[in-house]
Amino acid sequence: MKKVTLITGNTNKFKEMSLILIEYGIELEMLDLDLFEIQSEKIEEIALNYARNAYKEIRKPLIVEDSGLFIKALNGFPGPYSSYVNKTIGNEGILRLMYDEKERTATFKAVIVYKDDKFEETFVGEIKGEISREIRGNGWGFDPIFIPNNSKKTFGEMQSEEKNKYSHRGIATLKFAQWYSKLGNQSSL
Amino acid sequence: MKKVTLITGNTNKFKEMSLILIEYGIELEMLDLDLFEIQSEKIEEIALNYARNAYKEIRKPLIVEDSGLFIKALNGFPGPYSSYVNKTIGNEGILRLMYDEKERTATFKAVIVYKDDKFEETFVGEIKGEISREIRGNGWGFDPIFIPNNSKKTFGEMQSEEKNKYSHRGIATLKFAQWYSKLGNQSSL
Repeated sequence: MKKVTLITGNTNKFKEMSLILIEYGIELEMLDLDLFEIQSEKIEEIALNYARNAYKEIRKPLIVEDSGLFIKALNGFPGPYSSYVNKTIGNEGILRLMYDEKERTATFKAVIVYKDDKFEETFVGEIKGEISREIRGNGWGFDPIFIPNNSKKTFGEMQSEEKNKYSHRGIATLKFAQWYSKLGNQSSL
Repeated sequence: MKKVTLITGNTNKFKEMSLILIEYGIELEMLDLDLFEIQSEKIEEIALNYARNAYKEIRKPLIVEDSGLFIKALNGFPGPYSSYVNKTIGNEGILRLMYDEKERTATFKAVIVYKDDKFEETFVGEIKGEISREIRGNGWGFDPIFIPNNSKKTFGEMQSEEKNKYSHRGIATLKFAQWYSKLGNQSSL
């Protein structure tokens, strides 16, 4: 079985991605490194920089994942700082900012960067949807206020398997899994 | 006249600090470097990291300044990401989040880090106050919604000279000016 290390301290993220990767015969390991992320409005840039710094530390095949919720009526806020915003003003804060707002379109975007001694590859997953009018379901992060297009449920009302089919992270993880499972032995696994 | 280079692309910041430093015989120069800041909830950490990276580039005496507005009822939000938050949801967004909120206490905090070949010094300025109930005055950033303690005006309703007496940035700049003007010729000026 192929292995790859996910650099994160977020066990929810680890579990979601593991579920998909295992289907492709990829075993995910989790490692929490004490490294800084950069500030940028582009999560591709944040993830790439983080993957490079992490690779300097551990020198073995790794992935990082960065994601954000981009709300059109709020000029992309909270975007790259979704995690901080969720921790401080939470879903209640977002709903308050969106109160009475008719344009509720939002995009959840995830970027995975894979890095080893030969490859540095980026995989992007995006899902459009809208911000709900109330908090529905559990889930973590902004899941309880995001309704993906073609669904009536928020991510917070879905089980992991169902969410993975729709989600930005699920899409990016699938793209990575398809690529990585075909990588053969070219890389230093 | 002593010189020091402020690493920033923000001309408002440059002008505010120049006004104070010139009183201490310090000429401020401005340089906009294309360097990343790190993500952190501690602006001291962001400023220190940025000063070190900038020093690697230019190898001459420099200062950096990072500041943020920490609102108690919002768990410190927008904090280190004040600039991004201001650009996206703006003062209107903050007022909306604070609508009906009685606890309006907030702290504006500025950190200046000076670095040369011998010294690496941090200067902190803090001013407590509260979030106004409406946007008042002009000014940049969150100035039009912050009323410092012992004032009835928002920062946005003050001229630079008046604001500098109160402000977090003014206080930190003064501390730096007092230290730097006494530094003598120990440093590689």
